[in-house]
Amino acid sequence: MLAHRLIERKRDGLRIEPGEWRALALAYAKGHVPDYQMAALLMACFLRGLDRAETAALTEAMLLSGDRLELDHIGRPRVDKHSTGGVGDKVSLVLAPLVSALGMAVPMMSGRSLGHTGGTLDKLESIPGFRTDLSLAQARKQIEDIGCVMIGQTPEIAPADKKMYALRDATATVESIPLIASSIMSKKLAEDLTGLVLDMKRGSGALLPELDRVLELAQVMIKLGADHGCPAVALVTAMDRPLGRACGNALEVEEAIAALKGEGPPELMTVTYALGAEMLVLAGVAETTDQARRELEKAIATGRAAEQFQRIIAAQGGNPGVVDDPATLPQAAECEIFAAPRRGFVARIEPKPIGKGIIEMGGGRTRVEDVADPSVGFVITARPGDWVEAGEAMATIFARDRAGIGSGRAALRSAFVIADEAEPPLPLVSHRVTIDGVQPVSS
Amino acid sequence: MLAHRLIERKRDGLRIEPGEWRALALAYAKGHVPDYQMAALLMACFLRGLDRAETAALTEAMLLSGDRLELDHIGRPRVDKHSTGGVGDKVSLVLAPLVSALGMAVPMMSGRSLGHTGGTLDKLESIPGFRTDLSLAQARKQIEDIGCVMIGQTPEIAPADKKMYALRDATATVESIPLIASSIMSKKLAEDLTGLVLDMKRGSGALLPELDRVLELAQVMIKLGADHGCPAVALVTAMDRPLGRACGNALEVEEAIAALKGEGPPELMTVTYALGAEMLVLAGVAETTDQARRELEKAIATGRAAEQFQRIIAAQGGNPGVVDDPATLPQAAECEIFAAPRRGFVARIEPKPIGKGIIEMGGGRTRVEDVADPSVGFVITARPGDWVEAGEAMATIFARDRAGIGSGRAALRSAFVIADEAEPPLPLVSHRVTIDGVQPVSS
Repeated sequence: MLAHRLIERKRDGLRIEPGEWRALALAYAKGHVPDYQMAALLMACFLRGLDRAETAALTEAMLLSGDRLELDHIGRPRVDKHSTGGVGDKVSLVLAPLVSALGMAVPMMSGRSLGHTGGTLDKLESIPGFRTDLSLAQARKQIEDIGCVMIGQTPEIAPADKKMYALRDATATVESIPLIASSIMSKKLAEDLTGLVLDMKRGSGALLPELDRVLELAQVMIKLGADHGCPAVALVTAMDRPLGRACGNALEVEEAIAALKGEGPPELMTVTYALGAEMLVLAGVAETTDQARRELEKAIATGRAAEQFQRIIAAQGGNPGVVDDPATLPQAAECEIFAAPRRGFVARIEPKPIGKGIIEMGGGRTRVEDVADPSVGFVITARPGDWVEAGEAMATIFARDRAGIGSGRAALRSAFVIADEAEPPLPLVSHRVTIDGVQPVSS
Repeated sequence: MLAHRLIERKRDGLRIEPGEWRALALAYAKGHVPDYQMAALLMACFLRGLDRAETAALTEAMLLSGDRLELDHIGRPRVDKHSTGGVGDKVSLVLAPLVSALGMAVPMMSGRSLGHTGGTLDKLESIPGFRTDLSLAQARKQIEDIGCVMIGQTPEIAPADKKMYALRDATATVESIPLIASSIMSKKLAEDLTGLVLDMKRGSGALLPELDRVLELAQVMIKLGADHGCPAVALVTAMDRPLGRACGNALEVEEAIAALKGEGPPELMTVTYALGAEMLVLAGVAETTDQARRELEKAIATGRAAEQFQRIIAAQGGNPGVVDDPATLPQAAECEIFAAPRRGFVARIEPKPIGKGIIEMGGGRTRVEDVADPSVGFVITARPGDWVEAGEAMATIFARDRAGIGSGRAALRSAFVIADEAEPPLPLVSHRVTIDGVQPVSS
């Protein structure tokens, strides 16, 4: 009866009160509200919207539907980074070991691939033996021991969100700012952080392509963090092309390992350092982002960051040997160079066809229960703005078989736009958003 | 994948094409589309609306998800009446035997009580032994034999509608004109009729109280009928007070039997004759509604209508003795007179508290699986506009026990509005709607 009344209210554009959101989230988490009622409510929320107070109440309700990590006793700053998702975005794989190597606790809970975007859990699981399904108690212990854990949302964390997230995917109610904000923040608040950095992707490969909606989402999430004692800062970064060179689970792990050893591609390092510096400043261990950046560079140069990644991999059952020898990662059976079909400027490299190409090649999921082949993907060496001659190598395709190579070729043909004039790509880091507002970033 | 794409389209205010509605209805009827996806789509339809062409396509899709009665071979006009539902509305119980006694076939498929409104199936089932769950083949045979059947929607008839109807009830997506129109018409078109009369209730006790929405719904349904070769006429009738005196399943059967014997209360007979006359004119057996009305009166006066009801009851396993001796219907254990609490005019008799009172007294359902006690209810002798003295009898309450009498008393206290001035009730029959438009009716 509760659910019916709340659907009716939201349907008519009226507000749902905090106590009602709490009762609903608890009942839904316990299975007392059927999915079909929640689906109707989600569509009503999508079309009618939630105001700031309702978004806060829904976030709190989903948070309170489960447990929190409870890390106050460890006496260290606890920071995390969340990305709204993209193609080739392996920043989490670099940042978690890097920042925790500097003494901060990083209790990182990530997701799986969604639509054309990749998922940190899928990438980590391409490391032989790596387990992401730790219990809350195991996660807490590992943070106490080595300062970092990289896992999925445990059953105890925001269970109402977990069910709603899956339901939204199936009911075309994903792209709603209040629903996205409350879903992300209910999980991040459950990590019991002292600071959160948000990587807000914009551009054609982002889930929300338009800048104004990205900024709105950032502001909603920062306000939710502030209301719960978790200061947050957001950077708006470019997702009009893949980030870095590697796209595909094992290939991205390999590139992340290179980055931890100081050999990452420039765009990946720029974004990684920009986000990592914000984490250090939020944690209070650096005064300025410049100073923080130097600390990050030092942790890479000294090898501490790479060692910390080995420690994390070992703690979660994986083979830490991959850091020294990335060839132990799953390798694709077939590979082929992709050559420029004509001469001209690389006007655009669209992320979406690349993300979808990986799925088609068997490297992603179309349903949650699908098993992905971690070895497939692309290494893209051409960058937007480059001049290429016809026949010049632009990328390498990695596939299971010849059919996969064909799919990969088709994907790259629609991803690469070669033209007689160069198109300026989006600035890599364009805006910084804090509780005080939005500032443009000159990069 | 189909459902997701259609949800997305409707969510964004775009149109779903006829072939897509057909594929969706079939897949849903077969259980290949989960309820949660259909619930999200229904909410998107509720909030975004369906245009005329889409409403027609959805109706056709639900019709084609199942079978039709196929009655062409019987060589008689086939007519039915559908009411949008109210309190005390036992017109179907009178009309089906009355019109079929005059030689028309009446393949009547009715529903159960919904919200505060009563359901013809529940009323019929208060007759000891009466079965409403006939198969399509049994129904066809009975129409061939005696010209009338009074049943529920069989599993073969518009199965997609059957599932969607239940889902709409649970997801607050009932009061949508295109969804109501397509649901009703998909079932009525499956009856293979040559004519349909619609009783469009308006006023505080109707599911759609406002006249403009009632007229819109009528016009949508008449157009849907015309498109499928089923001419339809609608009358707008008053549901600002209960129709007739009896409210409650067995009590209404008793009043319907009285009506078939020429002893029905005047308002019930006015509405019954008005609707029945339209059925006869649509069937082509009367030139004018005045002539048709005389035929109807004659069928009652000669006893043919009452005999036909006995025939129907017997054919469906019930005890036809109830027509001669209504005391064989289930009788309430307790009854009590309800007296006017003050002197004044009966300004209003609200149907909603009466309908809800019956549910509270155990005479209705709050869930589909509830079993209703057929004996409880009210006989209301006061009419709007009457002058009453304090302590004068206005109604009799029939209940299972003293607690039920208390609930009944509370319901009547909120239903009866006694004031110093009389309020004019809605005209009993106010508008006639045909494919050519709306005409006011002077009654």
